[in-house]
Parts: sequence; C-alpha cells; structure tokens
Amino acid sequence: MLEGLREASRRIALRKAIDGWGTQAGWQQVWDETCSPAFISYFCGFRESVKGLEAAKAFNAALFGGFPGLEQTITAVAAEGEHVAYRHRLIGRNEGSFLGRPATGRAVNITGMTWMTVQDGRVVEEWYELNHDELKRQLGMTAQDASAAAAS
Amino acid sequence: MLEGLREASRRIALRKAIDGWGTQAGWQQVWDETCSPAFISYFCGFRESVKGLEAAKAFNAALFGGFPGLEQTITAVAAEGEHVAYRHRLIGRNEGSFLGRPATGRAVNITGMTWMTVQDGRVVEEWYELNHDELKRQLGMTAQDASAAAAS
Repeated sequence: MLEGLREASRRIALRKAIDGWGTQAGWQQVWDETCSPAFISYFCGFRESVKGLEAAKAFNAALFGGFPGLEQTITAVAAEGEHVAYRHRLIGRNEGSFLGRPATGRAVNITGMTWMTVQDGRVVEEWYELNHDELKRQLGMTAQDASAAAAS
Repeated sequence: MLEGLREASRRIALRKAIDGWGTQAGWQQVWDETCSPAFISYFCGFRESVKGLEAAKAFNAALFGGFPGLEQTITAVAAEGEHVAYRHRLIGRNEGSFLGRPATGRAVNITGMTWMTVQDGRVVEEWYELNHDELKRQLGMTAQDASAAAAS
C-alpha cells in the first residue's frame, strides 16, 4: 500500500519533471495533467509563493524565456509516500531576457533541488531551491546590475 | 532489506541534521560519529565542493559564526535506500561576521533543502541548496556590499 503510493507519487512527479520540463513541446499540457489547479510553487526561498497552476505556468514560461535551451540532468531521486525529491544539474545559456535585463549570452552550470508533494494523483505543491547569487555570478551580472534587476 | 536500509539511512542522516546542527553543544562529535572522513559537501551550487570531514566542519563553524542562534525546523523528510532528503526553514539573526563583513543584526527567515547519501553507516556526501541572493536581500546587504563580500 505504502509502496504503491510511493511508486505512484514518483511516476507523477517525474512525469512533470521530465515531460513537463520547460524546453519540451507541450510542457504546459503535462502540467495540466499532473498538477492540481490549486498547485503552489515555493520558489528559491522567496517569501511570496506562486499560487495556482496558471500563475505557476506563466512564471515557468518567463524563466525559460531567459534560458530557452536549458538542459536538465536529474542526478538522484528519493521518494517516500506522497513526497518526491530530486536533485538536478542545469546546463544552458542565457539567450533571452532574464530578471529584467537583456540576454548576456553567458553559459551557466549549476545545481538545484526540487521537492513535490502528490495528493490524489496530482502534484499539489513544489518547493525549489537554487542559489541565485551563484547563478548571477556565472552570468557576470555585476552588483549594480543585480541591484537594478532586483528593483525592476 | 531495502526498508531496513532506508530506516538506517534516515536515522543516521537525521542524527547529523538535528544533533549535529551547528548550535548544538558537541555538534562536531556528532559529525565525527555520523560522517565518513572522506565526507564531501556540495554547497549551494558552488563549483568547488568542500572535501573532507575536517574541512567541512571548519566551513560549518564559519557559517554558524555569522548566525550563532540559528534555529532550524525540519518540515519534511523523504528517504529511499541510501538517500535522505529533507526541507527546513531557518530563522535567526546575523549576530556575527558573515561573508567577510561585520554583523548586520538583521533577522532572516528562509528555506533550504538538504540531501545526504549514506553508505556503510556513514554520511558520505551532502548537497545543500539555499538562495544566497534572497538571504543577502534579507540582510540588507547592498549590491556594493555584496560585491565586496564576494571578492573577499
């Protein structure tokens, strides 16, 4: 029973993670199929969460606007009951507007960690952590640029 | 068998996470008892890992030097086989030198995620992700301060 729950949670979470990755054609439809309409995204320690599936899809589209070819390699998965955590490495290039500034053209190579909670066959929340300070360093965003972007 | 491995991994990882938290008396001894001497810490997306248990303890001591009363609340755990992931919320105050600058006295409230891998009864590696950019924002570190700290 518990084993079945774990395997079902893993299957749904990894479908969102892989088929729903922002470079995949039809990722929005995968989110529609795997997430609850009340899906909440807790993103990178920000005080404000992104509430609702439609808002989360818009937020994701904006992120991938900055990195349209961003490649994800999932390096480990741990699933237990309704919880599915995974680590990934991201490799890509800043080829579009990001954080309110134009593309830098610079390469990024960074790790992140995701945690999804699955209830009644749908992802109801997702926590994501990635160090934006290191990301900005790789993008060559100067302190002044970073400040301007944060205020924009 | 697999269940036993999961429970053993969880017990060891959470002992390091809780009894080995940097505000606990004797945390270093808990690290000695729960970690491999070859322990590697992959910290917040930095390219360079911290290699070896002694180096990791020194690194941890420096972090808690900045936040000597930092409180951790573990909000979820997922364990599978040799892998143990958990989320936490950190609440504290910057009461000591951090990132090369003096204490700001400001409060922080932020989330992070940890992933430990346990082999032969010891934690062999730990991945940690927290958004330093948000942390710096809460500390009121201006762009110029942040730049100076990064260069220090």
